[in-house]
Amino acid sequence: MTQTLQIERANNLKDKPDVSTVKFGTVFTDYMFTNKYTPEYGWSEPSILPYQNLQLSPSCQALHYGQSVFEGLKAYKNGEDVLLFRPDENFSRMNKSLSRLSMPEINEENALNALYELIKLERDWVPDGPGQSLYIRPFVFADEPYLGVRPSETYQFNIILSPVAGYYGAQLSPTSIYVEDDFVRAVRGGVGFAKASGNYAGSLLAQKKANELGYEQVLWLDGVEQKYIEEVGSMNIFFIRDGELITPKLNGSILPGITRKSIIQLAEYKGYTVKEEAIHIDTLAEDLESGRITEVFGAGTAVVVSPVGKLNIHGVDYIVNDNQVGPAAQELYDDLTDIQYGRIEDPFGWVVKL
Amino acid sequence: MTQTLQIERANNLKDKPDVSTVKFGTVFTDYMFTNKYTPEYGWSEPSILPYQNLQLSPSCQALHYGQSVFEGLKAYKNGEDVLLFRPDENFSRMNKSLSRLSMPEINEENALNALYELIKLERDWVPDGPGQSLYIRPFVFADEPYLGVRPSETYQFNIILSPVAGYYGAQLSPTSIYVEDDFVRAVRGGVGFAKASGNYAGSLLAQKKANELGYEQVLWLDGVEQKYIEEVGSMNIFFIRDGELITPKLNGSILPGITRKSIIQLAEYKGYTVKEEAIHIDTLAEDLESGRITEVFGAGTAVVVSPVGKLNIHGVDYIVNDNQVGPAAQELYDDLTDIQYGRIEDPFGWVVKL
Ligand SMILES: Cc1ncc(COP(=O)(O)O)c(C=O)c1O
Ligand SMILES: Cc1ncc(COP(=O)(O)O)c(C=O)c1O
Repeated sequence: MTQTLQIERANNLKDKPDVSTVKFGTVFTDYMFTNKYTPEYGWSEPSILPYQNLQLSPSCQALHYGQSVFEGLKAYKNGEDVLLFRPDENFSRMNKSLSRLSMPEINEENALNALYELIKLERDWVPDGPGQSLYIRPFVFADEPYLGVRPSETYQFNIILSPVAGYYGAQLSPTSIYVEDDFVRAVRGGVGFAKASGNYAGSLLAQKKANELGYEQVLWLDGVEQKYIEEVGSMNIFFIRDGELITPKLNGSILPGITRKSIIQLAEYKGYTVKEEAIHIDTLAEDLESGRITEVFGAGTAVVVSPVGKLNIHGVDYIVNDNQVGPAAQELYDDLTDIQYGRIEDPFGWVVKL
Repeated sequence: MTQTLQIERANNLKDKPDVSTVKFGTVFTDYMFTNKYTPEYGWSEPSILPYQNLQLSPSCQALHYGQSVFEGLKAYKNGEDVLLFRPDENFSRMNKSLSRLSMPEINEENALNALYELIKLERDWVPDGPGQSLYIRPFVFADEPYLGVRPSETYQFNIILSPVAGYYGAQLSPTSIYVEDDFVRAVRGGVGFAKASGNYAGSLLAQKKANELGYEQVLWLDGVEQKYIEEVGSMNIFFIRDGELITPKLNGSILPGITRKSIIQLAEYKGYTVKEEAIHIDTLAEDLESGRITEVFGAGTAVVVSPVGKLNIHGVDYIVNDNQVGPAAQELYDDLTDIQYGRIEDPFGWVVKL
C-alpha cells in the first residue's frame, strides 16, 4: 500500500547559497519530509512541509532516554539528472537501528517514495559543482512527553536536506589517525551496529584527545579485548596487504557502512581479493613495519574514500605509503564517485536516477 | 558569583491533579527553569518561565548525536516544609556526565540556587500524601542546529517538575529480575557511569525480553567478561551475605547511584559491615543456593529500596528470602524515607529544608 503524501507549499523560497563556501550541515533546503507514529495508526501522517522548527515537550523522550537514530546519504547532480546512491540500503539499515532501540520500523518502500518526492521537489537545491552534493538526513526520534524509562509510544520520522561542498577540494589528501587504547565506542551485545545517536556523543571525548595529540581521527578497538580493529569516527577502515583488500569483519559492534559494502563489491568486481577478518592491532603494527601493508584508507558517505597517511599505534607513529595517496584508494575513490555522479555506467544497479 | 534569575510569571496556573491517580512522569507543574549556553557567554541566561514547549531546529544536535544528560531527584513535603535529598550530589554527578559527553559543565552552586527558587515558587505542587513527592528532572542537551559530528557549540539546561505517587502502595513488595547474558548496557572506557540518554535507549530491548520471560527488571553484567554483576535498570544492587551488606564496586561502567552511596553510609552508621566488591555471577548463584545470601534489593531514587524476591541466573530461578521483604531492606527503606520526609532527624546533613 503506498501512502498519500500531503504537500504543504512554502510561501517563500530561500535564496540558494554558494555551496562552495557553505559549512557542512548548516544550510537546509525549503522543505522537509515528516511522518508521525502513533500506536493506533502506525506511521500514518506522511507529509512534505516547509522546513521549520519542531515543537517538542521538555519531557520529549528522545531528549531524556536517547531513542533516536539517523541515516546519511547523498544526491548527486549530472546535467538534468539527480542521482541517489543505494538509498534502499539506508532505509534498510535504519530499520535495523530502529529495531535495536525498540522503535517502530518504517515501511522502506514508502520511505523511498517519500524521499524521491522530496528530492524531485528540491531538485534545484542539488548543487552541481565538483564534489558537491545534497546531503540527505533521515532521522527518527521518540517524541512522547513522558519521563518513564520504556519505549516511547509516539515517534517522528523526518528527512532534511543540506547542500554540501566536497569533503576534499581538488584531490584526495591523506589523513592521520590515532588508535584509541582507553576509550571504547561499542561492545558486542550493545548498539554499535546501529546508527544510534548515543554512539556519537560517547565518541567525542576520544576525538578531542586525538585532535589534541595532533591526529585528525580516532581508530576504535573492540570493547572486549581492546585489541581488534573496528572502525574510524564515521568511516569503516580498509587495508591493502600483500596486494589484497582487507577490512574488519562485521561483529555487531561495527557500523555496517554502505560505502564499505560497496567498496567490497566494487573491488571484487575489479579483480581484487577481498578479505573480511578480525585484525589484531599488533599484527597491524607488524605489517605496517614490514611493509606488507602498503595502503590504509577509510570509507564512508561523507568522504567516500579517505587515505590514511599516518597511524599512531600504542604511542608509535607509522607512516603509510610515504604519507601519499595510494593507487588502490585513488582507483576505488575515482570509480565509486564516477558511479555516484553517473559519469560511468553503473554495473551494479546502485544508482537511482530521478 | 551568583547569577540573577529572571522570572517570567504565568498568566494562568494549572489545576493541581489528584496525585494518587496520576501516572509517573506525565503531569508537569506551572514553571520550568532554563539556562542557555553559548561559547561567548557560557551559561548566562538563567530564568524561570512558564512550562512550555521547546522550539528546536530539525538539525538540533542532541536529536542526531545524543549529547544529552539528565538527573533525577525528589522534593518531599513535611507539614509546611519542603525537603530536598542531597541535591548537591545530583549536580555534581551531572557535571561528570557532562564532561564525559564533551558538554560544558554547569556551576553547581548556581544550579542549586536556581533549583531552590523554582521549588519555592512551586511549593504547592509538592504533594503530601503517603509516599508522594515532586519528581525533579534537570537535563542538559545540545541544541545547535548543525549536522557535523563534533561537540555542539550551544546547549540548554532545563529543570522540569512532576508530582508523583509513591512507587509502592502501602508497603514494599518484592520484584523479580532476569540476569542478562547477551545484551550489554555498558563497558569500561564507555559512558556507563554517566546519566547519558543513549544508555537508556540501548537498554530497552533487554528490558522487553525480561518482561516477556516474566521478570520485571534486568540485572546487567559487565561488558568485558559478561560475568560480573553491575546494576539493575535504574537501580544499583545490594546483597545481604553472612549478615554483611555487599554491593558491586564502582568500575566506570556502573552508574554511581546517590541512593547507593546513601545506603552504604546509612548501613555503616547502623553498624553493618559494608563491602564493595567485584561479584561474579556464578558465585552469586552459589551463595543464593547455599543460603549465604539472605536478601537482595535494588536502590535508586524512584523506588528508594526495592526488595528482589526472584532472580533468574543462566536460566535457573532462585527465590530469595521466600519471596518476602527482608529485614535489612525494610529497615534501610524505613530509615532512608524517614530521613527524606524529615520524620526522623538527619544525622548526615543530607536534607535541605526550604
Ligand atoms: C560510526 C560510523 N561508521 C561508519 C560509517 C560509514 O557508513 P556509510 O558508508 O554507510 O556512510 C558511518 C557513517 O556514515 C558511521 O557513522
Ligand atoms: C542506570 C541507573 N542506575 C542506578 C540508578 C540509581 O541512581 P540514584 O540512586 O542516584 O537514583 C539510576 C537512576 O536513577 C540509573 O538510571
